[in-house]
Amino acid sequence: MRVSELVERSGMPLATIKFYLREGLLMPGMPTSATQADYDESHLRRLALIRALTEVVGLSVQKAREVIGLIDAPAGDLFETLGQAVAALPPYLDAQGTDHPRARAALERLGQVYDPSYAAVGQFERALEAAEAVGLPMSDERVLGYGEHVMAIAEIDLSGIPTNSPGDAIQYAVLGTAIYEPVLAAMRRLAHQDLASRRFG
Amino acid sequence: MRVSELVERSGMPLATIKFYLREGLLMPGMPTSATQADYDESHLRRLALIRALTEVVGLSVQKAREVIGLIDAPAGDLFETLGQAVAALPPYLDAQGTDHPRARAALERLGQVYDPSYAAVGQFERALEAAEAVGLPMSDERVLGYGEHVMAIAEIDLSGIPTNSPGDAIQYAVLGTAIYEPVLAAMRRLAHQDLASRRFG
Repeated sequence: MRVSELVERSGMPLATIKFYLREGLLMPGMPTSATQADYDESHLRRLALIRALTEVVGLSVQKAREVIGLIDAPAGDLFETLGQAVAALPPYLDAQGTDHPRARAALERLGQVYDPSYAAVGQFERALEAAEAVGLPMSDERVLGYGEHVMAIAEIDLSGIPTNSPGDAIQYAVLGTAIYEPVLAAMRRLAHQDLASRRFG
Repeated sequence: MRVSELVERSGMPLATIKFYLREGLLMPGMPTSATQADYDESHLRRLALIRALTEVVGLSVQKAREVIGLIDAPAGDLFETLGQAVAALPPYLDAQGTDHPRARAALERLGQVYDPSYAAVGQFERALEAAEAVGLPMSDERVLGYGEHVMAIAEIDLSGIPTNSPGDAIQYAVLGTAIYEPVLAAMRRLAHQDLASRRFG
């Protein structure tokens, strides 16, 4: 299809599509003349992925490019690639501290195995620190309560991992981590409403 | 304390503090002369809150101001204020559609009570649509599995709501919704690592 059809079917302005081409998030079409190129379904799927990562997950164009790059060409095994993908997700850390006292205490209490250099450890520390700073520190009870149910959610995630190819497994792990976070956040907001209306409504 | 001490204790540059004052996120100090003002612990706590909302929750300055405004001066009851706060959280919707087929189907399957005009319904629809668009649609099984554990997490949240004053309850609900989302996201990322290392490591 021509770029005009890509504009129509994706619902994205031409300028936006050209920007993603220039920034390397959208792969080039097959040139058909000096000024035209041919696009296919893979370009439409890619635009949907870019939109999901930027508008729903909330990544910057730069971070979305990092995540897409890992799906296109994983640099290592599942662990390594997922670690790199998680580092492209918020919250972002100013200084990569090596000590994460709050995260370490919580993970020890939960009895979880973790690699201290994994980006999520620093992100957990930053999130716990922020909760403390606004006067809502995570109590031990809340750590254990959340931990039990988050682990059950992670079990569901892992049970869905494709086993046919390492590439598919990496794509599922990277995208599933990012794309189900807004789903879970929305579900929690809705669960609060359900509970509150039953209790106080 | 003088503004120089606020800079030192908050670790924020003077230009940033002045920007938050100008934008109305930080309340003015008590004037002590034509060019100086006196600040106290409440200003330090407010700066910590602004930092948590912008750097950890990932809100823009405009959205952080909306959330802070709701805590400072709730416009309605708990439900109404929480609804307004949730609308200030991502994902943001281009057009406020009134039909949310995916969200409605999932909430009916879960048997949850919901107000269709609540911002989280549109956010849930947008998140489900994005998951579908990138080739990872939420299966019924995943909706039910996630739903059970998210509801248990929401029960923990609701059990911690302060009952001494409506203002405290609103502050807890608004801040707790926003501030524990990055905590839960980090915990899920870490639970994946724990499970994967036990299973494949």
